[in-house]
Amino acid sequence: MEQGKIKVVQYGFGPIGQACVRAVLKRDSLLLTGVIDVDPEKVGKDISEILKLNGKRGIKVQRDAEKVLEEAEPDVVLHTTQSFVPKVFDQISQCVEAGAHVISSTEELYWPHYRHPELAEKLDLLAQKHSVVILGTGVNPGFVMDTLPIALTSQCLEVNKIFATRVVDASKRRRPLQKKIGAGMTPDDFRVAVELGQLGHIGLVESLVAIADTLGWKLSRLDETIDPVIAEEQVKTPYLTVEPGQVAGIKHICRGYVDDEEVLTLDLRMYVGAKEPKDEVIIDGNPPVHAVLPGGIFGDTATVANLVNAIPRVLHATPGLRSVIDLGVPYAFLK
Amino acid sequence: MEQGKIKVVQYGFGPIGQACVRAVLKRDSLLLTGVIDVDPEKVGKDISEILKLNGKRGIKVQRDAEKVLEEAEPDVVLHTTQSFVPKVFDQISQCVEAGAHVISSTEELYWPHYRHPELAEKLDLLAQKHSVVILGTGVNPGFVMDTLPIALTSQCLEVNKIFATRVVDASKRRRPLQKKIGAGMTPDDFRVAVELGQLGHIGLVESLVAIADTLGWKLSRLDETIDPVIAEEQVKTPYLTVEPGQVAGIKHICRGYVDDEEVLTLDLRMYVGAKEPKDEVIIDGNPPVHAVLPGGIFGDTATVANLVNAIPRVLHATPGLRSVIDLGVPYAFLK
Repeated sequence: MEQGKIKVVQYGFGPIGQACVRAVLKRDSLLLTGVIDVDPEKVGKDISEILKLNGKRGIKVQRDAEKVLEEAEPDVVLHTTQSFVPKVFDQISQCVEAGAHVISSTEELYWPHYRHPELAEKLDLLAQKHSVVILGTGVNPGFVMDTLPIALTSQCLEVNKIFATRVVDASKRRRPLQKKIGAGMTPDDFRVAVELGQLGHIGLVESLVAIADTLGWKLSRLDETIDPVIAEEQVKTPYLTVEPGQVAGIKHICRGYVDDEEVLTLDLRMYVGAKEPKDEVIIDGNPPVHAVLPGGIFGDTATVANLVNAIPRVLHATPGLRSVIDLGVPYAFLK
Repeated sequence: MEQGKIKVVQYGFGPIGQACVRAVLKRDSLLLTGVIDVDPEKVGKDISEILKLNGKRGIKVQRDAEKVLEEAEPDVVLHTTQSFVPKVFDQISQCVEAGAHVISSTEELYWPHYRHPELAEKLDLLAQKHSVVILGTGVNPGFVMDTLPIALTSQCLEVNKIFATRVVDASKRRRPLQKKIGAGMTPDDFRVAVELGQLGHIGLVESLVAIADTLGWKLSRLDETIDPVIAEEQVKTPYLTVEPGQVAGIKHICRGYVDDEEVLTLDLRMYVGAKEPKDEVIIDGNPPVHAVLPGGIFGDTATVANLVNAIPRVLHATPGLRSVIDLGVPYAFLK
């Protein structure tokens, strides 16, 4: 790789995958060698047509992952398909068996050992066998409610409690996100959807467990609540209109306890019309640390940034299933 | 080390070294096995006497570093003596030759290749030869004006400019720091002291170069200015009184340029009576990132935290002269 460019295959060509490809094309050290997607609207088309670029790139979207991986010989696969480890297990295994590092936006893969210890173990062994790295990353999970708070604890000699809050004005986000948070539903339908497991931010529990594990905190229990944020006035977005009394979005809170004391609180509010979007971390510790990111980090772009920016670190990491923290953000050594 | 505790020697027993020892004593996984200092007031005394702890610890401050390193067999040396690489070169070499990892608060060691490429190379080779890690860290340099901004760039696909500001109310800091920033001097004496190189924050240039190097920015030039902050009203601290018109502290600004455009600005203000202490990072990028830490991270404690918290990461790092960034904070992969 020292002699040439780093060959990249994009696996999943939805909005995030397309933005990844734009970023890859802009970097001199990277060479896009293939794109995989199953969408019949995209398969067979040159990426330039889909991305509305001038001039063909000679790279067509293909459905057959095995064929692309064999022909494109990627050093790294940027993987942006689904949120759950069991659903992406085969896709990722296939990339690893083709000898490629995998950087994935799969939310559960940020801290996979909690929900899927057996699948995580299998992925780890497979990656070690093929001398590649598998990494789950993104903005949330991946940075604002886990890696950033963890990094800030590196300034502390004692950490008692951690609160992280993210308030997102979903009006500015992609249509799928607006749907995912229930914007425009009735409160009753929202409750039913929560019961059915159709709403809620995937990865919030992973973020919580990542912080606890990294700090060496043994959680006696954790819980989560998912409630609607009700619109007080009409909110229009490019995709939908929310009337007063309807659901504007979601309030998803995850709490971790040590000996029945709440030591970790992740409070995520994503709704259309949010007035003061922000990211905020408060560490009750010695010294105390308080960080506010007014406006919050813009998720769609930052997700792509986290994936692409991980490439050099992944290339230098020890083979296996790694986490962003393994790759080295500082954290508090408390015990 | 899996079977037992991590053996730690403290090299330098001033205020920071003493706070390190307190932190080491509080951690079950660490075992203090020796303390080195040259101060005749301390040599020969049990650390309990100096730290005002109940009961002797059986560890006396000793002057003879070679003897301590041989008898105490440290896994890690926490090194807090001086600010400049040439002054600590022999001390650190001695620790490395004794087979110990070194975590040092020496400011220039945060990014030593810029000012001292030959000494850095020697330290790197020596550390590799003895299979240990040498790390320079602290709060500033070490985190607030370098590692933190670098970590925040990991959220960006494009980075145009970075501004980092730290405002410290020096009234709350140690006496040596109040002296170091010129508090209580006349403006004329301050100017003379700056000319003589006696004032200014050591490490600010290192922070700037660390950011540039990590982002792959080739700086065409850099400059720095050191000016007094003049007291507008009387300020009393436990150690001194500053009258109106006298120097309250220092305004030290370092700028980095690419093709004559200012792309990096580090603005450090440390003075007694500062009204709104804070740390702040503004990244002009895509997406933009703005982080404010109201009150700022309290430096004395955080310096100690950075040293102690580095222990587990150092134990798992590749041997050699490493930086905090080598140990893995995410950064923007821009080219």
